[in-house]
Amino acid sequence: MKNVNIAILGLGTVGGGTYEILSKLNKKLIETRTGINFTLTKVLERDMSKLEALGIDPSCAVTDPDLITNADDVDIVVESLGGIDFPADIMEKALLNGKSVVTPNKAAVAANFERLNKAAKASGAQFRFEASVGGGIPALTAIKEALAGNRFTEVMGIVNGTTNYILTKMGEEGWSYEEALKDAQKKGFAEADPTADVEGIDAANKLSILTSLCFDEYIPPEEITREGISGVTMSDIEEARSKGGKIKLIASAKKRGAILSYSVKPTFIPNDHPLAGVSNEFNAIYVTGNAVGELMFYGKGAGALPTGSAVVGDIIAIANSL
Amino acid sequence: MKNVNIAILGLGTVGGGTYEILSKLNKKLIETRTGINFTLTKVLERDMSKLEALGIDPSCAVTDPDLITNADDVDIVVESLGGIDFPADIMEKALLNGKSVVTPNKAAVAANFERLNKAAKASGAQFRFEASVGGGIPALTAIKEALAGNRFTEVMGIVNGTTNYILTKMGEEGWSYEEALKDAQKKGFAEADPTADVEGIDAANKLSILTSLCFDEYIPPEEITREGISGVTMSDIEEARSKGGKIKLIASAKKRGAILSYSVKPTFIPNDHPLAGVSNEFNAIYVTGNAVGELMFYGKGAGALPTGSAVVGDIIAIANSL
Repeated sequence: MKNVNIAILGLGTVGGGTYEILSKLNKKLIETRTGINFTLTKVLERDMSKLEALGIDPSCAVTDPDLITNADDVDIVVESLGGIDFPADIMEKALLNGKSVVTPNKAAVAANFERLNKAAKASGAQFRFEASVGGGIPALTAIKEALAGNRFTEVMGIVNGTTNYILTKMGEEGWSYEEALKDAQKKGFAEADPTADVEGIDAANKLSILTSLCFDEYIPPEEITREGISGVTMSDIEEARSKGGKIKLIASAKKRGAILSYSVKPTFIPNDHPLAGVSNEFNAIYVTGNAVGELMFYGKGAGALPTGSAVVGDIIAIANSL
Repeated sequence: MKNVNIAILGLGTVGGGTYEILSKLNKKLIETRTGINFTLTKVLERDMSKLEALGIDPSCAVTDPDLITNADDVDIVVESLGGIDFPADIMEKALLNGKSVVTPNKAAVAANFERLNKAAKASGAQFRFEASVGGGIPALTAIKEALAGNRFTEVMGIVNGTTNYILTKMGEEGWSYEEALKDAQKKGFAEADPTADVEGIDAANKLSILTSLCFDEYIPPEEITREGISGVTMSDIEEARSKGGKIKLIASAKKRGAILSYSVKPTFIPNDHPLAGVSNEFNAIYVTGNAVGELMFYGKGAGALPTGSAVVGDIIAIANSL
């Protein structure tokens, strides 16, 4: 059986979920399907209790990222640290050293899209980031691969579960924005500081990535016009309902001729549009291609195992080609 | 630029749509994205007016399939003839001769799943059939590749556009089954003899393919318990509505422990289930994986360009690996 060596940077939600799927939950199934044995050789993690909780040999732990980016016994690096510049620098080093990189880190990918892809191209390593948009939903791979015969004209997404949960509860339960946000925080769908979600920053990062893939055009996330949901009132929601629709936080990009337009903003979606049925913390990506027509991908946009599923899919794709 | 030679068997709806996308509509875009030039070298087609309508050089036409399966100037064979045994025999020969095969032909794939995959394995050629289930929806590739880290527990699909159109019109317009069928035939969504669609034979073929991919277990389509929609009455539809749902023709397979159960039948779907919003001729495939949770893929299940999009995606995937 072929062996492929993995390093994981950061054993938080996604790093832990990835290890859980690959080395415990579905280890045998994945070995049978792929004929590949995956070995975790290195972990960048200071908190030894996280290794212990997952049953990872403590000797895998390192605190210096160079011991991973330069290691002979690492084929694929999973970056699940969070942050922007620090993880991007590590990913660039790994790629330049010929190690393929998988990451769910939308902020780091969106801010560094061109330099990371350039580093991958320079060494021939692969850079994959399916989990960075829509968590477990395999939309990015579909756009790049199975749909590669299409000229895309539009992409629209409900790509932030926190805001979709809040808007759903405002609409269905009649809660105020503040009540719904508090409930989302209680359930773990929103952070203590919810700014990146509710102001559309997270959605703009994801739209930057979608736009690069659909239109071969990179728009830095800070150039995307963005309006969050903190200004959405109950009367906006009532008005949408009276017009036969819902308000959703939509990240969208459209190409008409040579003109690409893009924004993140609360948007009226009529009830008969497939995106109107995407409720609570679920995400969906809706694309239109000139051959395939309208397509929608729907699923869980966050969580250890759903996001880990996308990371593992990328790992398997790389390992198959090694 | 790398050159890859294609042969198309049958210039009907899907064969014609594939040529249209690959060699006209998106030719330049595909060349830029892939760095590959695709050349149509052979066509199995007796009707020369079809070549003329598409602008294909008449010298490409052959009437003996051996001139394709044995040809030196064919890398990938697109089988879009229809039928079961005749196209399967050609595909098997092509695969055994090391030519990769792409087909949208669900009946031929479902009936010959094991022997065609065996032929591909024997020679190392690729056998891809994304277009055989859900037309342009890239669900099969996602199940086999991006979701390969999942143990699937259930797959449910609205995989036949004709019956979904009829059931939608019965529910939304109050038409009888006969009226809705007549309208579907007028609009080109149903054949003059609608048996394969309305009796669930087409859906059973697609379920056989989905079951093989999700559960690594091949069930011949004739072993799938199947009930069509010709017995669905207006009072069934009214009853579903009064219970807060709709009747949909659902192809489903479930695995509980070692037990796989499967059927095609009219099924009550509550309005808050994502499949309830799949209307008219649209298709959707809904899968549950033990890591990713619930996922749905939605789009056009038929038509020259949507189905051609899936065929072209498979062609590009094979060409990239040649």
